[in-house]
Amino acid sequence: MADEETRDNPTSTFLGKILGKQVVVRLNSGVDYKGVLNCIDGYMNCAVEETEEYVNGQLKNKYGDVFIRGNNVLYISAAKDNQVG
Amino acid sequence: MADEETRDNPTSTFLGKILGKQVVVRLNSGVDYKGVLNCIDGYMNCAVEETEEYVNGQLKNKYGDVFIRGNNVLYISAAKDNQVG
Amino acid sequence: MADEETRDNPTSTFLGKILGKQVVVRLNSGVDYKGVLNCIDGYMNCAVEETEEYVNGQLKNKYGDVFIRGNNVLYISAAKDNQVG
Amino acid sequence: MADEETRDNPTSTFLGKILGKQVVVRLNSGVDYKGVLNCIDGYMNCAVEETEEYVNGQLKNKYGDVFIRGNNVLYISAAKDNQVG
Amino acid sequence: MADEETRDNPTSTFLGKILGKQVVVRLNSGVDYKGVLNCIDGYMNCAVEETEEYVNGQLKNKYGDVFIRGNNVLYISAAKDNQVG
Amino acid sequence: MADEETRDNPTSTFLGKILGKQVVVRLNSGVDYKGVLNCIDGYMNCAVEETEEYVNGQLKNKYGDVFIRGNNVLYISAAKDNQVG
Amino acid sequence: MADEETRDNPTSTFLGKILGKQVVVRLNSGVDYKGVLNCIDGYMNCAVEETEEYVNGQLKNKYGDVFIRGNNVLYISAAKDNQVG
Repeated sequence: MADEETRDNPTSTFLGKILGKQVVVRLNSGVDYKGVLNCIDGYMNCAVEETEEYVNGQLKNKYGDVFIRGNNVLYISAAKDNQVG
Repeated sequence: MADEETRDNPTSTFLGKILGKQVVVRLNSGVDYKGVLNCIDGYMNCAVEETEEYVNGQLKNKYGDVFIRGNNVLYISAAKDNQVG
Repeated sequence: MADEETRDNPTSTFLGKILGKQVVVRLNSGVDYKGVLNCIDGYMNCAVEETEEYVNGQLKNKYGDVFIRGNNVLYISAAKDNQVG
Repeated sequence: MADEETRDNPTSTFLGKILGKQVVVRLNSGVDYKGVLNCIDGYMNCAVEETEEYVNGQLKNKYGDVFIRGNNVLYISAAKDNQVG
Repeated sequence: MADEETRDNPTSTFLGKILGKQVVVRLNSGVDYKGVLNCIDGYMNCAVEETEEYVNGQLKNKYGDVFIRGNNVLYISAAKDNQVG
Repeated sequence: MADEETRDNPTSTFLGKILGKQVVVRLNSGVDYKGVLNCIDGYMNCAVEETEEYVNGQLKNKYGDVFIRGNNVLYISAAKDNQVG
Repeated sequence: MADEETRDNPTSTFLGKILGKQVVVRLNSGVDYKGVLNCIDGYMNCAVEETEEYVNGQLKNKYGDVFIRGNNVLYISAAKDNQVG
């Protein structure tokens, strides 16, 4: 995404609201990564801390920091307490 | 999309009409996300509020804000009251 | 597509001829969207009005405005009266 | 493709030779579109006039103008009289 | 590929050695196109003359000029007399 | 990723923390490469040293330096001692 | 990859170490090409000399120079004497 597009555009503003918050990163494969959104860039590459990996709603793995490549991401949503899968 | 392409081009004008409105975002997978279109950028990355997820016309999930990566989007249409699936 | 490529290049001239006309937008999936081509950009993202969705030649859905992401498009053709599927 | 790449580069020169001529546009899917090449750009988006659609060598459809998205194109060849499929 | 990358970079130098020579263009699908490499650009879009199409080593078709879209290309190799499939 | 995006942006800062450290590079295919992250660029092309290849948690291969193309990467995580698969 | 990214960036430095050396180029398909790395660019398009093609560890073909399109490459590793498949 062109820089101007990334910095002052509404989607960045929207994403700014969920930085540092608990999020669920849903991948195209259906796998969910739940954790604290540390940072995100214009391609939706995102770094998540204290990450939990859920497959079909089941906790599969715990990682520290995970850096996810944006092209695999389906959506990112602000996590409700019980929301995965 | 080049910046000039994004700001003053007809597609942006068209999309501007549905900002803040109820929309259905149909993904390539056939899943529908119905909610209020908060913002959208040149790659059709879009943020949807009060989002409902429909699979084959069945309500599956409710989210607050969902940020959907544009490359997964098939189309975005202004939602009629009963239109999903 | 680079801006110069989009504005004054022959393909834009060609597409200009079908703006505001009845078109059929054939997707890679084989689904057809028939309606009035409102606008199109360099990535063939296109907005279609009074849209009818045909699957295997059968009318499946009617939408108002539909904004289709270009990467899903196989071709766009000027619609003959009976031409879908 | 960067503009300089598109205008004065050998591939454009090559393509220039088949503009206005009968061509066969073979898609990745194996479908052939035979017609007069009206225009083509750096992404091989191409507009074909008086188009015939062949599937496994069988004539399936006739269109007027068809605008094909480049990423679906496998190759474009100058059409010999009987050459499809 | 950025222009500077295309013109004075080693890969262009390498490709320059096989221009005008007999080459085999192997596609991702496994199909081979054998002929004289007329030109090639930074995306490996390439024009081949006096082209023979081989599927599993069997000659299937003969074309005059064929313009192949780069994204379908697996590799291009200098053709040895008997080398296809 | 535009240069400005790569150098002074939070994701680069995040990635900087794991340079020279033991990481697990998970590919879209599910294969894991565990080793020392030597370098990484804006497309997540990454060079890993003293690399071990794991398939379904089983050690399959040992390499010296491996240069992995970014588009195949699902995520990169700081490796815990026993973490693969 | 932007030029600045290609020339003076660590990944180029890393790749520079294996230029002129025996390498194994593993494709997404699992096929290995073993030979001398002649040159490589920012998209990992690479030219390999005295190339041997291995499928499941079995030598299938020998080529002179092969120019491989980067998007098909999974990784490139410095070849140990016996290492393929």
